[in-house]
Amino acid sequence: MTHIDINADLGESYGAFQVGEDQQLMKVITSANVACGFHAGDYNVLAETIEQARLEGVAVGAHPGFQDLFGFGRREFKVSPSEVYNLMTYQLGAIAGVCRVKGVQLQHVKPHGALYNMASKDKDMAESIARAVYDFESKLILFGLSNSELVHAGEKMGLTVAREAFADRAYTSEGYLSPRSEKGSVLTSLEEIEKQVLSIIQDGTTSSLDGRTISLEADTICFHGDGDSAYKHAKHIKDLLKKKDIDVCKVGGS
Amino acid sequence: MTHIDINADLGESYGAFQVGEDQQLMKVITSANVACGFHAGDYNVLAETIEQARLEGVAVGAHPGFQDLFGFGRREFKVSPSEVYNLMTYQLGAIAGVCRVKGVQLQHVKPHGALYNMASKDKDMAESIARAVYDFESKLILFGLSNSELVHAGEKMGLTVAREAFADRAYTSEGYLSPRSEKGSVLTSLEEIEKQVLSIIQDGTTSSLDGRTISLEADTICFHGDGDSAYKHAKHIKDLLKKKDIDVCKVGGS
Amino acid sequence: MTHIDINADLGESYGAFQVGEDQQLMKVITSANVACGFHAGDYNVLAETIEQARLEGVAVGAHPGFQDLFGFGRREFKVSPSEVYNLMTYQLGAIAGVCRVKGVQLQHVKPHGALYNMASKDKDMAESIARAVYDFESKLILFGLSNSELVHAGEKMGLTVAREAFADRAYTSEGYLSPRSEKGSVLTSLEEIEKQVLSIIQDGTTSSLDGRTISLEADTICFHGDGDSAYKHAKHIKDLLKKKDIDVCKVGGS
Amino acid sequence: MTHIDINADLGESYGAFQVGEDQQLMKVITSANVACGFHAGDYNVLAETIEQARLEGVAVGAHPGFQDLFGFGRREFKVSPSEVYNLMTYQLGAIAGVCRVKGVQLQHVKPHGALYNMASKDKDMAESIARAVYDFESKLILFGLSNSELVHAGEKMGLTVAREAFADRAYTSEGYLSPRSEKGSVLTSLEEIEKQVLSIIQDGTTSSLDGRTISLEADTICFHGDGDSAYKHAKHIKDLLKKKDIDVCKVGGS
Repeated sequence: MTHIDINADLGESYGAFQVGEDQQLMKVITSANVACGFHAGDYNVLAETIEQARLEGVAVGAHPGFQDLFGFGRREFKVSPSEVYNLMTYQLGAIAGVCRVKGVQLQHVKPHGALYNMASKDKDMAESIARAVYDFESKLILFGLSNSELVHAGEKMGLTVAREAFADRAYTSEGYLSPRSEKGSVLTSLEEIEKQVLSIIQDGTTSSLDGRTISLEADTICFHGDGDSAYKHAKHIKDLLKKKDIDVCKVGGS
Repeated sequence: MTHIDINADLGESYGAFQVGEDQQLMKVITSANVACGFHAGDYNVLAETIEQARLEGVAVGAHPGFQDLFGFGRREFKVSPSEVYNLMTYQLGAIAGVCRVKGVQLQHVKPHGALYNMASKDKDMAESIARAVYDFESKLILFGLSNSELVHAGEKMGLTVAREAFADRAYTSEGYLSPRSEKGSVLTSLEEIEKQVLSIIQDGTTSSLDGRTISLEADTICFHGDGDSAYKHAKHIKDLLKKKDIDVCKVGGS
Repeated sequence: MTHIDINADLGESYGAFQVGEDQQLMKVITSANVACGFHAGDYNVLAETIEQARLEGVAVGAHPGFQDLFGFGRREFKVSPSEVYNLMTYQLGAIAGVCRVKGVQLQHVKPHGALYNMASKDKDMAESIARAVYDFESKLILFGLSNSELVHAGEKMGLTVAREAFADRAYTSEGYLSPRSEKGSVLTSLEEIEKQVLSIIQDGTTSSLDGRTISLEADTICFHGDGDSAYKHAKHIKDLLKKKDIDVCKVGGS
Repeated sequence: MTHIDINADLGESYGAFQVGEDQQLMKVITSANVACGFHAGDYNVLAETIEQARLEGVAVGAHPGFQDLFGFGRREFKVSPSEVYNLMTYQLGAIAGVCRVKGVQLQHVKPHGALYNMASKDKDMAESIARAVYDFESKLILFGLSNSELVHAGEKMGLTVAREAFADRAYTSEGYLSPRSEKGSVLTSLEEIEKQVLSIIQDGTTSSLDGRTISLEADTICFHGDGDSAYKHAKHIKDLLKKKDIDVCKVGGS
């Protein structure tokens, strides 16, 4: 039976600044990428989010990013491989510490924002991230953009890798995410999203923003929309997949 | 043979802001309290400091504080027990993560600044800290002010506790540190420091700022002076202790 | 004809973190308290908010707070009078600079959160704030809790003062705001809010949370609710006041 | 009589993090570039630094930078012209506010670090900076790298411009500062510094790092060295200039 993991970014509130619809999303997804306090999240939010995931039976992953609250981790920084290694291990340690006292097993790691995008194309950065994950805990599953340098680096390092595709983001013909600044880069109609998700799962392809068919094999699908759309889209797609006899389950198994 | 541990606070630089004389201090101390990125330190400094400690054979401890770079962790915050628990586990995780990839065993935990001082007197906060340390890793040694609530909470929790005394700080007659704002609260003459250290090690007492003899049993002695005085004082005292046949060694054993 | 000013806190978003319903509120209020980048807001948000106020003809006021993004300026800090003076002048300068290039006149100053509450009771802090405002620009109007030390300090300094009352917050019998942690401290029913506002405007009194009648004379009324309730309440009350022939206009005049 | 201004960056301490040798430098320089709290400095340090400059009769300038304490404003950010305009006016306002309550006239503006370097080459950024300065206060003098886009933009905007050269930094053959990461980019020998300064003042030229003679006309010379070298170099050169009958005075006149 065909199966797929559904993931989303959570735990992105900061102090009094509320972000996202975590409680709803937790009901639908199978893997949560939890912000580690650098680009978003804080030590209280982190603890609450992991507790929530534990209660809902959702797998917990680290979602490390640049230390850039103001830019929400979406701004690019020139960083050396050793700086990337250091910011990864710090954040992996922090979230693993919280998981430990909560009795939760950390399942995966998915870099956030600019770190994710840069590591999709930059081999050295991808290698630094993969090495940090491997050195920290070689059983962790690395989430990376399908076909990206990050996925290649993870495989080369000997990590289990989950190829990720986005339900509600458009792709360039090279297989990267279209930048948010580009028109049409965020899919908003359920029809488009349905089409993209089914095409990914059933055929391992999708249509790029400029209309080409690109290869897009995926083990996990991310819902990413702003406001409450991530929940709405994920809920809709999950119901659809059920009807189509496609099993939605964690990449790491139960 | 009498023995004592010598500790100091390290890894307090932040980005381009240089603090302390870590390289020199590493040559003299047996236990390093390493800032975890909240009141001081950053992910790069943390990694470098642990690497340095590894090379010098100095035991590494976590030195968690309030998330207050501007106040250097010296400002008091009203915090709930669960917030204290959360900020402790986050920082413990972060430093333990870095230790892990460096192949270093985390030896101890010593709260920093206002967190340390508040936990000396506030039973609930002390209990939260002790519980966070215990839940995270029950083999960690908790450093706390000799006679303080923190030491009591650690013992009650079943942790190994190291009672700490300060070589270069004056005490109130209740056995607390005199606040830095008070005149005479920081000892600067080698003579005074010698006297206080020997009195602590040999008699388990010292003289408070207002001239009373107070009980002060210690397993570890902290050097705390600003600028390069911590190094100078620690070096001087270490040489003195050698002459007096007092063994200087890690609390956690070799 | 009776008249009253309606104010609200705006410009509290930070980077990607969206707060409030500024665009709607701007349509209803006469005075905007704009966050200055310390407890909330940032240099982009500040510029956009002042531009918006200019377009809507809403009077702009500084809303300075503690430099505490994580605590949203709601945590108390022990601060010396000179530190309060410094944090006030920095923020006043920053917002006045933005006003200057936008061609907007800064009308008033209302301290935020813990700074506001502490200055309501603490004479020295109130005096520091009043002095900073006066030294920076003696024509600025100081907003302070009706009957508070801040109002007294402003008057003593020779500033024009606007006594503030809250439409949707309950009062203690001493005339302070009931802390948010207390049940009933935030009024949510339109009926209660109507009653409190009319009682303030028409009689200069209200009922405290424990049922006593307290004196509450006001020149400006603040709408403060979370989410979109501030807008709903302000809109409702403004319409009500119109019916009652109570003029809603800026404290500083047109 | 030939004359020149001597400037240095000051007010870069942050909370407990001490930077620089401001008190000594104030005795030698004629113009101080004061950090505005974004890349360094804080509201207390800013107030103290301006007070010190007032007492020493040193001209005060704004030294605005990217909001990047961790990177000390030396990291490049992709920023839109309007974001640059906003970060400039915020910081100009903040420092001008402090100057106002101290009774000090703000003399000049010199962007810091990456902002300065980017504006040397990027016409749009240079134009945004010049426009922000002009809109805020058209009498301010803009300091920019001699021959740079920033200088051109300032002149075009109608600002008084001071062309800046660096006493202790090497130049590329295009007339830009050699990046700090390059060997030889920071001059450390007094002999080299003497030679560069005299060549700039007397001939309007210097030798680039790769040995070419480049044009370098300057109205103000910056001392920039780390630790206490800025003071030592500035003191030495000032004494030298006196002997050579070269007048050291503020660009803005007394």
